[in-house]
Amino acid sequence: MTPDEFRRAAKQLTDWIADYRADVEKYPVKSQVSPGEIARKLPKRAPEHGESFEQMLRDVDEILMPGVTHWQSPDFYAYFPANASEPSLLGDMLSSAFGVQGMLWETSPACTELETVMMDWLAEMQELPSQFRSSSTGGGVIQDSASSASLVAILTARERATNFKSNEEGCRQALTAYTSAHAHSSIEKDIKVAGVGSKNLRAIEVDDAFRMRPDLLEKAIERDKAAGNLPFFVCATVGTTSTLAIDPLPEIGAICKKHNLWLHVDAAMAGAAAICPEFRVINRGLELADSYVFDAHKWLFTNFDCSCYFVADRKALINALSITPEYLRNPMSESGEVVDYRDWHVPLGRRFRALKLWFVIRHYGVEGLRHHLRRHVELAEWFADQIKADAKFELAAPVSLNLVCFRLKSSDDDNHRLLAALNRSGKLYLSHTKLKGKYVLRLCVGQTHTEKEQVERAWELIKSEAAKL
Amino acid sequence: MTPDEFRRAAKQLTDWIADYRADVEKYPVKSQVSPGEIARKLPKRAPEHGESFEQMLRDVDEILMPGVTHWQSPDFYAYFPANASEPSLLGDMLSSAFGVQGMLWETSPACTELETVMMDWLAEMQELPSQFRSSSTGGGVIQDSASSASLVAILTARERATNFKSNEEGCRQALTAYTSAHAHSSIEKDIKVAGVGSKNLRAIEVDDAFRMRPDLLEKAIERDKAAGNLPFFVCATVGTTSTLAIDPLPEIGAICKKHNLWLHVDAAMAGAAAICPEFRVINRGLELADSYVFDAHKWLFTNFDCSCYFVADRKALINALSITPEYLRNPMSESGEVVDYRDWHVPLGRRFRALKLWFVIRHYGVEGLRHHLRRHVELAEWFADQIKADAKFELAAPVSLNLVCFRLKSSDDDNHRLLAALNRSGKLYLSHTKLKGKYVLRLCVGQTHTEKEQVERAWELIKSEAAKL
Repeated sequence: MTPDEFRRAAKQLTDWIADYRADVEKYPVKSQVSPGEIARKLPKRAPEHGESFEQMLRDVDEILMPGVTHWQSPDFYAYFPANASEPSLLGDMLSSAFGVQGMLWETSPACTELETVMMDWLAEMQELPSQFRSSSTGGGVIQDSASSASLVAILTARERATNFKSNEEGCRQALTAYTSAHAHSSIEKDIKVAGVGSKNLRAIEVDDAFRMRPDLLEKAIERDKAAGNLPFFVCATVGTTSTLAIDPLPEIGAICKKHNLWLHVDAAMAGAAAICPEFRVINRGLELADSYVFDAHKWLFTNFDCSCYFVADRKALINALSITPEYLRNPMSESGEVVDYRDWHVPLGRRFRALKLWFVIRHYGVEGLRHHLRRHVELAEWFADQIKADAKFELAAPVSLNLVCFRLKSSDDDNHRLLAALNRSGKLYLSHTKLKGKYVLRLCVGQTHTEKEQVERAWELIKSEAAKL
Repeated sequence: MTPDEFRRAAKQLTDWIADYRADVEKYPVKSQVSPGEIARKLPKRAPEHGESFEQMLRDVDEILMPGVTHWQSPDFYAYFPANASEPSLLGDMLSSAFGVQGMLWETSPACTELETVMMDWLAEMQELPSQFRSSSTGGGVIQDSASSASLVAILTARERATNFKSNEEGCRQALTAYTSAHAHSSIEKDIKVAGVGSKNLRAIEVDDAFRMRPDLLEKAIERDKAAGNLPFFVCATVGTTSTLAIDPLPEIGAICKKHNLWLHVDAAMAGAAAICPEFRVINRGLELADSYVFDAHKWLFTNFDCSCYFVADRKALINALSITPEYLRNPMSESGEVVDYRDWHVPLGRRFRALKLWFVIRHYGVEGLRHHLRRHVELAEWFADQIKADAKFELAAPVSLNLVCFRLKSSDDDNHRLLAALNRSGKLYLSHTKLKGKYVLRLCVGQTHTEKEQVERAWELIKSEAAKL
């Protein structure tokens, strides 16, 4: 494809995307296809000869679209948002066009340096504690997902706890880790990956508001110590997946300091809120943490992948993950003057992901970003007020930021049927969880373009579907 | 940003990218900046208020460009190519625009089903053994990098070898793994991550052509068994990083079968060549493998990230990596009728990466892709012929596919100075390795738009810089 052919095709695709974005509400939010329906329409074999871009775009419309769930719809309230705002699309397009590999400073200096500066911008925007700035002992790096970032935290903690022996000798000691019973499933997955063993992960029970109980955490640590185990890692959650509960960091952090455990804070979605001074309370106690992650690709309008991982001691991180074969040696890395981000995560290859953050932050400005987050929180509060005012419904957890957990005052079956009917309508998409044994619906307001109009419509639909049960 | 503002900005960016692509050779291939030079030009803090797209694009030109190394230049011969062909840019742009999360079939069926079909297309294009097709017991999945895919292979092998106990109990047994002394550094990194311990990874010596020696592999396995260790995993390389050596899979595979070890094959760059029948010999013996990975983001013209990982027994993989918290439960997953790719790798979140593969394969057609690979191999052969015909130079390894390892018949210092001078010229970018103790230059022909003209110019420049030493 010549540059001019690309020019034509990309403009055609730009129009397609702009039209799609403008009309996204005309599609069922949640795809309504059956298993195999899309695959059956695709040829079994690759074409021998090239096909035209027009044909490809037609097939997107005719074959793929019915199977797409519209995560960018303002009627999307399921799971957590995966915002791909327009400026982030532009930044990502430029990143693809450069196609650089940023594994070493040497292999594209701008990729590394813009990333360091963006991580410092974010640290300042969220008023993160000083240990997470590059000017201090730590710094930030972009990873693909909070799952991967938490794995890195566990690996660094594992190495520190074993006097930097576990990499060489394997995970042989009886290490034990701790997280809330409401922590994200990736913590258990990562503990398995790291060879620690899921039976050595203690799921600490939560209080009535679904926050980790520090008293039970400390008891579990003491029990393990008495049994000859080596407690090494705690993951606290700022905004759990089910209810967006905020674990009490000051108390948890004090326990970690006392017992010399690594404290990792997973703020996957909620962390973005800390750019607003009035929400910064969620990070109270974060100065006690060794590492922190939040996903700009959830609620900070930057398309996947863009997990922002901050570490207090970058030397410990690099010691845990660095390997330098001959073919990656270079004078700049050896000088110690530069950052080589491949040593900050598991994969070697890396995209120029800082570009999209740069575009997003500059397009909105910090005030613009705050405006959107505040609007989402207000809309969630408005929705929670409707639930509270309606005798047929109840809140199932304290409302936290932009997430409302609610249910019909009825059986689990009825709530399950309500969710299925809503999602089948194509007019919105919600997901569910279980709280205190009960089936609960979750409405998370976080899509870039969600306004009062959409949330009002969602509430009307929820009431009318509930009335039909 | 409204859809119409996006339309305007994206068209402006499209023109910028098309111009950049057309003029890429006017920039120094390897950035010539000093550490901190880019960072110093960036503001220390995020802007409070939004800025215009025009200003952002100006800053790309004025601030970033000097720090960009041009991986998409046809004069790029370093490391391995990281092709971001024009059709892949289009596919990736559409993927960003949809912004779907494909963690479950449920969360966007087209994302999952197109991926399964693309993996089957690739398996057919490369004539991979039947165990890697979705119609059989296995199947393929897109991962971010070969590092991550190899980690998944190690984790699945670890679980299988410990009767599915290592996830629960931790990596407690004396597991031992094997790979060539020339394998990619990610294997050692992954072995550390998985808690196996790098001292339990045996680096098997290579023969004169840098291929793993099966006799030494078997001896090492037997020695470990005699010592009471549990050999569990072998990684063979189809195309090593230093020289693109092809390990002898039939012999290695037979040893793995005999001793019941997991055989993983890392064909990161070279694997793409198997779409040409005449190069398929590189995969001879692959039917003995449990898993296989190649990077479409290296030599198959698809932008990063797009590692294609194939596994023979998908049930073992899913058993090793699946975790289902309540909030991800859904009737489709429980029906067993669908694939949930989040269980096929470490991260939970995932982009719609199959789109770019779909666009690339359809744009070029299989014949078109073969044409480019064959041209690259021919150009590498032409370059190797020049080296052979010039008394000042020598080949430092057998020429394999598109990679030529060569050196001045002179000191390591001279070769090092030659490389530095070439890269400083800005006219091309090569990298190096060490072979049999000697400093060696690597020229890898694999960039989408590299033609005879560029390779001839490279050879002239190499000769003239060598003459100046």
